[in-house]
Amino acid sequence: MGLDLKEGERVKVKILVLNCGSSSVKYQLFDMAEEKSLAKGLVERIGLPGSRLTHRPVGKEKIVKEVPVPDHGAAIKLSLEALTHPQHGVIKEYSEIRGIGHRVVHGGSFSASVLIDSQTKDLIAELEALAPLHNGPALRGITACEVILPHTPQVACFDTAFHQTMPDYVYTYALPYELTQKYQIRRYGFHGTSHKYVAQRAAELVGRPWGDLKIITCHLGNGSSITAIKNGKSYDTSMGFTPLPGLVMGTRCGDIDPAIVTFLMEKEGWTTKEVEEVLNRRSGVLGVSGLSSDFRDIEEAMEVQNERARLAWDMFVYSVRKYIGAYIVALGGLDVLVFTAGLGENSPRVRLDICQGLDFLGIQIDQDKNNVRGEEREITAPGAQVRTFVIPTNEELMIAKDTQAVLQEKGLM
Amino acid sequence: MGLDLKEGERVKVKILVLNCGSSSVKYQLFDMAEEKSLAKGLVERIGLPGSRLTHRPVGKEKIVKEVPVPDHGAAIKLSLEALTHPQHGVIKEYSEIRGIGHRVVHGGSFSASVLIDSQTKDLIAELEALAPLHNGPALRGITACEVILPHTPQVACFDTAFHQTMPDYVYTYALPYELTQKYQIRRYGFHGTSHKYVAQRAAELVGRPWGDLKIITCHLGNGSSITAIKNGKSYDTSMGFTPLPGLVMGTRCGDIDPAIVTFLMEKEGWTTKEVEEVLNRRSGVLGVSGLSSDFRDIEEAMEVQNERARLAWDMFVYSVRKYIGAYIVALGGLDVLVFTAGLGENSPRVRLDICQGLDFLGIQIDQDKNNVRGEEREITAPGAQVRTFVIPTNEELMIAKDTQAVLQEKGLM
Repeated sequence: MGLDLKEGERVKVKILVLNCGSSSVKYQLFDMAEEKSLAKGLVERIGLPGSRLTHRPVGKEKIVKEVPVPDHGAAIKLSLEALTHPQHGVIKEYSEIRGIGHRVVHGGSFSASVLIDSQTKDLIAELEALAPLHNGPALRGITACEVILPHTPQVACFDTAFHQTMPDYVYTYALPYELTQKYQIRRYGFHGTSHKYVAQRAAELVGRPWGDLKIITCHLGNGSSITAIKNGKSYDTSMGFTPLPGLVMGTRCGDIDPAIVTFLMEKEGWTTKEVEEVLNRRSGVLGVSGLSSDFRDIEEAMEVQNERARLAWDMFVYSVRKYIGAYIVALGGLDVLVFTAGLGENSPRVRLDICQGLDFLGIQIDQDKNNVRGEEREITAPGAQVRTFVIPTNEELMIAKDTQAVLQEKGLM
Repeated sequence: MGLDLKEGERVKVKILVLNCGSSSVKYQLFDMAEEKSLAKGLVERIGLPGSRLTHRPVGKEKIVKEVPVPDHGAAIKLSLEALTHPQHGVIKEYSEIRGIGHRVVHGGSFSASVLIDSQTKDLIAELEALAPLHNGPALRGITACEVILPHTPQVACFDTAFHQTMPDYVYTYALPYELTQKYQIRRYGFHGTSHKYVAQRAAELVGRPWGDLKIITCHLGNGSSITAIKNGKSYDTSMGFTPLPGLVMGTRCGDIDPAIVTFLMEKEGWTTKEVEEVLNRRSGVLGVSGLSSDFRDIEEAMEVQNERARLAWDMFVYSVRKYIGAYIVALGGLDVLVFTAGLGENSPRVRLDICQGLDFLGIQIDQDKNNVRGEEREITAPGAQVRTFVIPTNEELMIAKDTQAVLQEKGLM
């Protein structure tokens, strides 16, 4: 158990975090004694022409290696070779890695991170039926690690786990009861690791236990979601059964009238797959602006009075504002508001526009303090009741910590 | 023109209001001098076995007549016969009816009530493509009146018209721009006549012009919607392209993850029509409770600890509360909150549960005053900042007034 480790041992504990996508593997190695990243990297275009590895060791030069990468197993091998490379590596042997934490998007009814054994593997595989696009790559990564590092314990950390505390009247959809039971259709919510991380960090900065606070966390990136956290528990979140609904996103439509789905299928003669493709990949600010799914491009286009960029931006901001209002009612007030993820961390304008005119709810940010990008900072205006923060998210560290905790609990570390 | 009428003439102005559904016609005759209803009635089961008329003249005995009613034309003739009946009638001749106002659900881009001429009839017919289930019966009613009362001018009053003032970032969906343009896909909103009526009435009761007020109107019935009204204009509303989204309803699902639509089609092998049927007619509180679409039945079942009735009720209440929060942010504050329609007027419990714990937003209702059913009353608790009202809706009177105004403007009255 972790508590039994001698000081010398403790320093050696290193955890590898893997985030396997459909054609990519992101990895990061942590030294858990100091909770510090030793190296991170990305293998992209797996199974496609032009595949390559980018490896960034802390304090050493980055390397880029263009090699064929046929599958996730090959990608993970390549990552481990980079981590143990004589010049560019940060460890000597694979055996220094004491545990592997996998980001798994859909965790069904899992309410916490779990040790991966044959039983949990079966359960994760069952969830593939629920969300085939999300969990397949993670499962391929897990299986590859079993082959390459057969003695290293693995932990699954789910994007959905933090949201399992939502009350039934929040997570249930108003559909025929038998159907929602039959297919486990409910609001699951995503980005849970990020929402939990920044909420806990905000509570530390405020100097109060998060169990005493009413917190709204805005994870605004290419995919965006917003969560209401009451007493340290997720109470409501804007994503749902899948990551499609809620806020307007880079390419996802967010909340729409569900009748539009069948209307479009009939008018355009689309299959279910075709309409899903449009709603997930051709909608959002990309669809409205016709320009880009990247909010930086939208901000730039607004500067030159592009009307559809202005519309996309206003729609996005309005969707965040409405959720903030809804969640203030859900929480019965608000103590802390947090902005995180690509856009939330790096766009002073988005934070300013979202908070505009909300002083009657106690929300007011300081324009000077708000001029910050990618840096942890409180941006509350003097005298404002709600404490507002920019907190860079760190899902990888959260997964590493969860992995360590699960392994310690199971006596595997 | 109306202003040129002599006092004697003015008294004679009578307007017939028709609300044609797929198998029913509701009618009401108004004396516009005093804005009083003279009689109302219902023809139901048109084209079905067991069709009948129920006629309720004010101050006289009601009559029920069971006769075959093959179509909307026959239904309207039957209504006119009842209105001119020697014993049960309230007028002597059809010619006393100076105008006919039709409730038309979908008005596309019409922003006000309009005189029905060949051009507007074409436009209403075009909207059938957008909403075939909604406008067909109204069009059949309009055509029947042209035959039966060829010299009586007709006006169309749209459920969507009041909401045409929404800003673009509120009514636009984050879908590919070309698609929304091609099919005029946008948030239209419904129940507009009701929201407008109760908001104006609330402003009268507060004694301030509604153009100065921030108002939220909750139309809660079997179909429910909620509207944010700023400066006398609809700013946002919970229904959308169709009346399906927004609040949890009697049989409609309200807001759901749009990905559930295609998920269900694939899993159950349903067509677009089949999934639409489930979302519109088998969902909502009926679907969740498995008991009834009638909120009175849900309230009763909760009394005997029926768990699924409790869940359906909590979901409904939570959906209203979230919209109230969202719209307080949208409006930048709140002056007036109004409850109307079947449930909103008649259930003290729903109003109490919705307003519970919202005193931090200035909303607090008086428990004693709140014990009212179907009666106009202010229910604000002493000292509460937001003025809260129960206001019985009167869409028929609103349609009659709009009809009179249009006819006066056109010099037809």
